[in-house]
Amino acid sequence: MDADEGLERLRALGFSDADAALLWEHFDDAEQRSKLSHGHARIAWLETLEFDPRAEPELVEESDAFERWHARGAIGYVVVARAVSRVVASPPSRVRVVVCEQTYPTGVLGHHVRRLADAGLVGVLTATSPARLASPDGGPSVAGTNPLAIAIPSSDGDPVVADVSMGAVTWGDVVAGRATEAELVPFGGEQSHKAFALAVGLQLLVDALAREPGHGAVLVAARPESDPVPALRAQIAGIRLPGDPAPPKAP
Amino acid sequence: MDADEGLERLRALGFSDADAALLWEHFDDAEQRSKLSHGHARIAWLETLEFDPRAEPELVEESDAFERWHARGAIGYVVVARAVSRVVASPPSRVRVVVCEQTYPTGVLGHHVRRLADAGLVGVLTATSPARLASPDGGPSVAGTNPLAIAIPSSDGDPVVADVSMGAVTWGDVVAGRATEAELVPFGGEQSHKAFALAVGLQLLVDALAREPGHGAVLVAARPESDPVPALRAQIAGIRLPGDPAPPKAP
Repeated sequence: MDADEGLERLRALGFSDADAALLWEHFDDAEQRSKLSHGHARIAWLETLEFDPRAEPELVEESDAFERWHARGAIGYVVVARAVSRVVASPPSRVRVVVCEQTYPTGVLGHHVRRLADAGLVGVLTATSPARLASPDGGPSVAGTNPLAIAIPSSDGDPVVADVSMGAVTWGDVVAGRATEAELVPFGGEQSHKAFALAVGLQLLVDALAREPGHGAVLVAARPESDPVPALRAQIAGIRLPGDPAPPKAP
Repeated sequence: MDADEGLERLRALGFSDADAALLWEHFDDAEQRSKLSHGHARIAWLETLEFDPRAEPELVEESDAFERWHARGAIGYVVVARAVSRVVASPPSRVRVVVCEQTYPTGVLGHHVRRLADAGLVGVLTATSPARLASPDGGPSVAGTNPLAIAIPSSDGDPVVADVSMGAVTWGDVVAGRATEAELVPFGGEQSHKAFALAVGLQLLVDALAREPGHGAVLVAARPESDPVPALRAQIAGIRLPGDPAPPKAP
């Protein structure tokens, strides 16, 4: 899919030109980074959903260090994008925690925090999603794949962006038939209790900071005091760091 | 080791009565939770180190939403304990991010954030440690085992405390001969790039927020708006949640 087609289909869904561009940039970035289940295929998926493409998230609580957004029916991608844009336009004196309520789906969290790093800010973001992970000890699925993304700016212009889902595969992989639902377990094999613990902890973090039950996101944005990335890149000498372009995949 | 012996040995190292009690509580909690490499054995380890047991960390930057501590030679356990005590005594209006510089070793991070949850606050804590994890793609060890701990208070009095190290084994396990140094890799088996990414991301987060190079810790403390733990406990119906007592281990 090229940009013309993607933008046209997003506009046909009712999104404004600006939001169509924002969504295309998100999906195309995912596609280029080989996160195919978050890429162009999401446009066809959006075409199957019912939502209000003109709904506008509301900033319901606001201070230098804390903001709370409510989606007010807007799709999660747009809510987080608005929250990030606001942080970039008006950075915190030190740190800001941003809670986004009723916010889903949020897409590739690394994409959102990379925008903060590109603006010179540190960003940490998690978001909840439908419960699909059960404890390795058994019981029902109680946690989403709840990724954690961390972006660190760099004076060399090349931020490090870690973006880790707690699932061994993605739900998108299941939908696309690349994985079975039985494979959607916490990652880690024999140590999958660790990824389960992180998924539960991150989910409760979002749930505890939100006022209303439902999916949401929590962002921490901070001004850095130091610039550790160039030294790490020099030390690791050519080995890929999180968020660096993946090597070409075998067909 | 009983409390009398532990306290006596800690006081003999030069710690004040209050700090000896604080350290004993930390090590004994780890011991009771079967985190043996962070337990009573750490007292013998402290006896081999050179440090100033009467050094006092300094609060060098302070506002409702942000604090920065410098260890000023105090051992990491004490620095984080002081930072947590201050948050408990004077909670943030919404959120506070606390950076602890030159802070190592910090012990069981779950122990520290559990104190916040017991005081009704949400706590998220990470800390860096000597670089012992290499990328699954190769290269030098560039990241500590850098745990992430998340504690969520509960109206039922029983917080959930996730506390996950990014290493497949602990350095303490290596020192105690329970694991080999070759086993100290990012956890996750075939997906160990995920734990490596988290270890790198958390390390750069600490390094970027600190002013001085060196090990450190970053804490986020927040007032909860909701109480999600009781519903999760009901839903999971007897399956162990993170931080719950471990079942007795086979000998």
